[in-house]
Amino acid sequence: MATVLAFDVYGTLIDTHGVVAELEERLPADGPEGLAQEFSRRWRERQLEYSFRRGLMGAWVDFSECTRAALEFTDRALQTWLSETDKEHLMSLYARLPAFAEVKQALEQLREAGVTCVAFSNGGFAAVDGLLVQAGIRHYFHDIISVEEVKRFKPDPAVYALLRTRLEVASGDCWLISSNPFDVIGARHAGLHAVWVRRSLDAPFDPWGIEPDMTVANLVELAECLN
Amino acid sequence: MATVLAFDVYGTLIDTHGVVAELEERLPADGPEGLAQEFSRRWRERQLEYSFRRGLMGAWVDFSECTRAALEFTDRALQTWLSETDKEHLMSLYARLPAFAEVKQALEQLREAGVTCVAFSNGGFAAVDGLLVQAGIRHYFHDIISVEEVKRFKPDPAVYALLRTRLEVASGDCWLISSNPFDVIGARHAGLHAVWVRRSLDAPFDPWGIEPDMTVANLVELAECLN
Repeated sequence: MATVLAFDVYGTLIDTHGVVAELEERLPADGPEGLAQEFSRRWRERQLEYSFRRGLMGAWVDFSECTRAALEFTDRALQTWLSETDKEHLMSLYARLPAFAEVKQALEQLREAGVTCVAFSNGGFAAVDGLLVQAGIRHYFHDIISVEEVKRFKPDPAVYALLRTRLEVASGDCWLISSNPFDVIGARHAGLHAVWVRRSLDAPFDPWGIEPDMTVANLVELAECLN
Repeated sequence: MATVLAFDVYGTLIDTHGVVAELEERLPADGPEGLAQEFSRRWRERQLEYSFRRGLMGAWVDFSECTRAALEFTDRALQTWLSETDKEHLMSLYARLPAFAEVKQALEQLREAGVTCVAFSNGGFAAVDGLLVQAGIRHYFHDIISVEEVKRFKPDPAVYALLRTRLEVASGDCWLISSNPFDVIGARHAGLHAVWVRRSLDAPFDPWGIEPDMTVANLVELAECLN
């Protein structure tokens, strides 16, 4: 049975910090240097925290609600006082974030090598489908598997079990590809293989004693390793 | 049946940023301004994130392991290269963090008013007991209830159910007192009353549509509200 690569979406294929240019236009011009980067970073961190906490509470909502509440929180915490129009605009941008620069080339190489790729995301099916379409990479994916089918969030073991069920493969044949250490650790804990895409040298891997099977700097490096 | 106040410990009774002075001595002197505060803040945030993720993964460990791994992560992320001796020292400090300035007076007032107080923490029983003893406030608490009894972490509904079971009160008679919005939201979601101690004006409450029953600036204000 062929190996299947399950790609995380936000942060791995798609750049969640693709909102920085728009933030720079909309945040107060007299704010501290690097405010847009700081806003983007804290927005993303809080979005993930909200998904972890909602998962733990058994109070699942669509991921976009975590994104929206995290935007609101960050705006209040940084006292940037964005207008409702600006917030709606930023949310709509989240539906058309760009792919990382090397993604298309890597997916092309994997297709040529005959590797089956699926997208596997905390995002809802429609949101992920739309995101991949607008980034021009939807056709590289055999399927989209969204946590909304089980109403849990990564790194709950139930979502990795969903992935295995949907792919109907033994766990050894399915590899998670993610830039998010929490996702890599969650997958390894659930018995999957996992590759860490180390997109930033600033972010160390969590020292839990659970390591990725492989670490790559980007997806072209991954495709080349598999050839 | 009398009302019981269940106090969160870390951040509510005990100041988790009581390590800043020691950090200032041990971190590189040529680091950026405010590095010790930044280190303390990120250490605490990561400790909580680790507890949320471990709870979600069903991979509970004692809270001190989350604290230790978060210290290691923060040291690597900020590239502060603390020695193993320094890290051990910081961990031992975590066992004797100070209470916030007004805590003793507030607990005295509550005792005089005949209110029953318990400590209710993500920390292990022995760690919390030791922390309250060294802060000189252990004798104000009728009991210590630790999540280690159920091997989950706040805000998992199971830990609030444990609190109710241990107190043998209907949920309406038990109030959680916490400075941590995740704890207040978790308790409210599980059907308890909850007071938010807003120790910092910089940290807004999470905009989830789940509000505290009451907000106070500190515990003396709480004691006065109850009188």
